[in-house]
Amino acid sequence: MIYITRRETFNAAHRLFKPEWNDEQNLKVFGKCSNPNWHGHNYVLYVTLKGEVDSETGFLINLKDLSKIVKSRVIEKLDHKNINLEVDFMKGIIPSTENLAIGIWKQIEKPVSELGAHLHCVKISETENNFAEYYG
Amino acid sequence: MIYITRRETFNAAHRLFKPEWNDEQNLKVFGKCSNPNWHGHNYVLYVTLKGEVDSETGFLINLKDLSKIVKSRVIEKLDHKNINLEVDFMKGIIPSTENLAIGIWKQIEKPVSELGAHLHCVKISETENNFAEYYG
Amino acid sequence: MIYITRRETFNAAHRLFKPEWNDEQNLKVFGKCSNPNWHGHNYVLYVTLKGEVDSETGFLINLKDLSKIVKSRVIEKLDHKNINLEVDFMKGIIPSTENLAIGIWKQIEKPVSELGAHLHCVKISETENNFAEYYG
Amino acid sequence: MIYITRRETFNAAHRLFKPEWNDEQNLKVFGKCSNPNWHGHNYVLYVTLKGEVDSETGFLINLKDLSKIVKSRVIEKLDHKNINLEVDFMKGIIPSTENLAIGIWKQIEKPVSELGAHLHCVKISETENNFAEYYG
Amino acid sequence: MIYITRRETFNAAHRLFKPEWNDEQNLKVFGKCSNPNWHGHNYVLYVTLKGEVDSETGFLINLKDLSKIVKSRVIEKLDHKNINLEVDFMKGIIPSTENLAIGIWKQIEKPVSELGAHLHCVKISETENNFAEYYG
Amino acid sequence: MIYITRRETFNAAHRLFKPEWNDEQNLKVFGKCSNPNWHGHNYVLYVTLKGEVDSETGFLINLKDLSKIVKSRVIEKLDHKNINLEVDFMKGIIPSTENLAIGIWKQIEKPVSELGAHLHCVKISETENNFAEYYG
Repeated sequence: MIYITRRETFNAAHRLFKPEWNDEQNLKVFGKCSNPNWHGHNYVLYVTLKGEVDSETGFLINLKDLSKIVKSRVIEKLDHKNINLEVDFMKGIIPSTENLAIGIWKQIEKPVSELGAHLHCVKISETENNFAEYYG
Repeated sequence: MIYITRRETFNAAHRLFKPEWNDEQNLKVFGKCSNPNWHGHNYVLYVTLKGEVDSETGFLINLKDLSKIVKSRVIEKLDHKNINLEVDFMKGIIPSTENLAIGIWKQIEKPVSELGAHLHCVKISETENNFAEYYG
Repeated sequence: MIYITRRETFNAAHRLFKPEWNDEQNLKVFGKCSNPNWHGHNYVLYVTLKGEVDSETGFLINLKDLSKIVKSRVIEKLDHKNINLEVDFMKGIIPSTENLAIGIWKQIEKPVSELGAHLHCVKISETENNFAEYYG
Repeated sequence: MIYITRRETFNAAHRLFKPEWNDEQNLKVFGKCSNPNWHGHNYVLYVTLKGEVDSETGFLINLKDLSKIVKSRVIEKLDHKNINLEVDFMKGIIPSTENLAIGIWKQIEKPVSELGAHLHCVKISETENNFAEYYG
Repeated sequence: MIYITRRETFNAAHRLFKPEWNDEQNLKVFGKCSNPNWHGHNYVLYVTLKGEVDSETGFLINLKDLSKIVKSRVIEKLDHKNINLEVDFMKGIIPSTENLAIGIWKQIEKPVSELGAHLHCVKISETENNFAEYYG
Repeated sequence: MIYITRRETFNAAHRLFKPEWNDEQNLKVFGKCSNPNWHGHNYVLYVTLKGEVDSETGFLINLKDLSKIVKSRVIEKLDHKNINLEVDFMKGIIPSTENLAIGIWKQIEKPVSELGAHLHCVKISETENNFAEYYG
């Protein structure tokens, strides 16, 4: 068993808030992250796969194939976008780091398994001081 | 002459666009940075002062004093904010990295000089791949 | 199950030595880390929690609550302190990176569980070239 | 149980290719990494051990002992070398990040266990955007 | 006057040696960097321009235009290449960090000035412990 | 003219205080940095030289020679030491980042010039959030 990880980055705006709550309630729970005018981050994404090394190539899988999946199904949808308003797989979901990790997992789990590898972990860093990891 | 630098961070949303231009023109010049729904960054700010070392303290100035100025006049105004809509000193200014560096310079130049130091450089990094520096 | 991590930093002095040993023995085992005049580090601490995402908030727990615990029970006790002489939860314990990770775990395990999350890992980096991880 | 990690770096040249394949096939699978004139990397190696803390020393093991093993059995063989041509433990093996992690594991597993610790993970980063981890 | 910097990366093999010298002389001066079988690095390149901010766009220049120049004239020629054997602008030049900075400067000075900016600095980092800067 | 920089690291304890002042005065000016029981840092030192490239070697100077000077005259004196008590060139000097940069400059200026290069800058980083630069 070997694990390989690919790092990608994207920049996006978001806002943490619950539409059912009023501004006061949102502010109490989400603090300045609930700013109605949005704020944003340079997100760093780490996608980790596990599996056996292919003795033909020395690769778990070809990272170019992983990169294509991550770019088309995740990065292009998130980069320079508003996560609350524009990202199909985050519609109606509070864009916390936790939910973002889970959402990205669902976007890539199936195509990664079709490459012959298992998705092991989606890690997403929101700032240099906090990150979330999801293992399925 | 000694130079000291303080690093601070803030997260904000912005959009590069010129109100006088239509969406097509904005897209042509600013690309995905002109997204009307905003995007955002983890900005990193470096403020550099120059001056003589105070033989009493071994300090150019007390960094606590610099930190107070930068926090009250820059970070609190930018952190978790929309630069286009909410930041007084960026009103009507395209929030490029260049203009942000110049805007921050103007916010802190005078109070820094009142501390007995000269503002030497404002450097602001927008992503790990680009930054701007302004020397007045 | 989701995992979230909060990063904090602190600066401290310490010395690796065993009072029962003489200087020669301490030097043999601990090398320059046994310097009787102390040395110090910029420590980086990563606290990882695991649990279920709260569907109300999208959070495992509110990181502000975690931050309060870590600040009051760990950072304030360690930052700009001498670990051997001044830190109550390290009294009589050799302040190796391993023991520091275990000591910090004990400081925060109970209050973290009272937040409704499980403490998963305490990771502490002493220099850019070495770190310890404790999983309880 | 505690885990400790030591970070080391080395610079090396390599080429991903399969001698049984012609240039075209190699190019198709390995892309520019198959360049017959070689390319290279600043590799970063993380060796993680697990075990019990020695109550005498506060150490899992003395990192100086681990460092000696890693330096003599891994770094000296790889640093400023051509991995395909000059590294005995990689002879006849495609020098992918995956295979390098496995090769390094085999080099140090036994001597590490003789120190009284268990080798837990060999992680090797080839660029800032990809790394492999091997757990035996 | 404003300064903007773009960061790019490339991986390459090289060897420090002087063809007029024998192996012993080369080893004496260049040490393990003279290995006839090559070694390599993850180079990090920082290109800094200076000029006036365009009041229309808020940009010194559009970084997309700079990026095109740097990619076509520098990165594509160096990335995954052997600097001694394959890079036209380094032919016959010892590929030290110093010479690489000067060579890259010459590659981009004219096209950058045609964009309406002045090339201010080419900085190239060979490892995390050394870098060279050239200001023309 | 070319500039080359060498990065080195060291860990040390220190305390900011003025013996002529009482504890209260020291606390007022230096805050928690005046802790009588010391604290410490992982310092990062950047030494920058300027000069002409030697056409024989492609080097400004051989970094191995610079490294020897910095190791013997700076690192060995500071690493794992108490700057206030044990470092000859800091005797009687408040060990602020500013004074440390100046002290290191004086230690290496002459031997560097004997190598045929000019010392351009000593930069010393105390934490990830502050550093000092001295240009002589």
